[in-house]
Amino acid sequence: MNKNRDLVLLERLADVASAAILPHFRRLQGVENKDEGGFDPVTVADKAAEQAMRELLASDCPEDGIFGEEYEAVAGRSGRTWVLDPIDGTRGFMAGLPTWGVLIALADAQGPQLGMMCQPYVGERFVGGPDGAWLSHGGERRAIRARACGSLGEAILAATGPQHFAPAAYAAFQRVADQARMVRWGTDCYAYAMVAAGQVDVVVECGLKPVDIAPFVPLVEAAGGAITDWSGRPIGPTLPHDYNGEVVAVGDPSLLGPVLDALAA
Amino acid sequence: MNKNRDLVLLERLADVASAAILPHFRRLQGVENKDEGGFDPVTVADKAAEQAMRELLASDCPEDGIFGEEYEAVAGRSGRTWVLDPIDGTRGFMAGLPTWGVLIALADAQGPQLGMMCQPYVGERFVGGPDGAWLSHGGERRAIRARACGSLGEAILAATGPQHFAPAAYAAFQRVADQARMVRWGTDCYAYAMVAAGQVDVVVECGLKPVDIAPFVPLVEAAGGAITDWSGRPIGPTLPHDYNGEVVAVGDPSLLGPVLDALAA
Repeated sequence: MNKNRDLVLLERLADVASAAILPHFRRLQGVENKDEGGFDPVTVADKAAEQAMRELLASDCPEDGIFGEEYEAVAGRSGRTWVLDPIDGTRGFMAGLPTWGVLIALADAQGPQLGMMCQPYVGERFVGGPDGAWLSHGGERRAIRARACGSLGEAILAATGPQHFAPAAYAAFQRVADQARMVRWGTDCYAYAMVAAGQVDVVVECGLKPVDIAPFVPLVEAAGGAITDWSGRPIGPTLPHDYNGEVVAVGDPSLLGPVLDALAA
Repeated sequence: MNKNRDLVLLERLADVASAAILPHFRRLQGVENKDEGGFDPVTVADKAAEQAMRELLASDCPEDGIFGEEYEAVAGRSGRTWVLDPIDGTRGFMAGLPTWGVLIALADAQGPQLGMMCQPYVGERFVGGPDGAWLSHGGERRAIRARACGSLGEAILAATGPQHFAPAAYAAFQRVADQARMVRWGTDCYAYAMVAAGQVDVVVECGLKPVDIAPFVPLVEAAGGAITDWSGRPIGPTLPHDYNGEVVAVGDPSLLGPVLDALAA
């Protein structure tokens, strides 16, 4: 694995995805309903961005596999798989909010090793991997680090929305929320980036897809945090094929015990 | 009233507030607890930005009144009042999300006539008043317009968080949510800007302060939408001194009836 080549490709993938998406942001041209049982918006932008990333991967590293949100998985021969979510936070995108992101991860048999969240309208990219964790914004790159947090009572807790929890899971979430200092909703991918950046202390979600979480395993871990399922099992090795959709991400690993205890209570 | 002078001052107020706030975003240096009964964060940035705006107003239009979030109201002699919320969405700010905004409105005895929401990190400013509604971003200015929406069943509904509703009010909100196509949480000031920009169809909130909503009366109305309290009464004339904290904002005024009916059911 050539680390530098992978980082360059990661940035180029974000470039082509951003170029495909931005013309559609706040100018939606079409929304399809891909889930007959509910409302799951897919935009023209989503598909165009994934196609653009797949074309780049097919030409630059045809030996790698691809696991994306919108199209069939491509089996690779290299043992490496690119995990793609062209627009995470589709509902935020549809509502015109700058809270969605392009998620890209590179996984091997042990799970995601390199990950990026790119927010093209804001112009920021969060990256984590073997070289650490950093934020690029306005032409500058700075290292980021999760923050210490002495107790759950001091913690900022984030999640995307109450409607994403089934009733029992929501009760478990509320046990965590009742102990936290505050809850922030509507966070989508930013929740995890902000754990890595030392702004959010805990994220508790479930019902996620592999593509929603893949880049945040290396990002949160490289920033000094921890990320597991609701039973405390590492999720990296389950990605992308055996993931149960649960996540607990903490900036301070000492919070993991109290959060898991509250979920299990 | 000199419209052009007011618009220039509006932009300068946003400039000084942005300059005061941005060094603190994602680098919080201090958070006080101003509400003994609960958690209401106030940042150094919040106070610095309001002070900077007040200094500019004191030097440029000492005859105007000031009604701000952080400091005492200043009575004016002109019949005009500047309504200031240096950081709306303090919790989003604390969580590192780019969803907070600087809110500035200019009110006369009939209520706010000119309003701006500025998001300095994203670099966008939404303005509404006698000259219409527009968005400035990346050096470009384009007119914005609320969108048509045939029914509540097609509507995107937005609100900041379930915790901001008392139980009876949350039940009323849920009656609206049950009819809407989707609910987006965590929106703060962006919800109203996105109604004006034709991205969100309905916002229903309560417990707001006058400074939270003042600029959105002219912004939503100039974009073709409507904004009232939960009984359908105009909120403009109640601002800033007699506001009951309720708001229903709709992009398509024909949605107002169904939303008010659902709230009252």
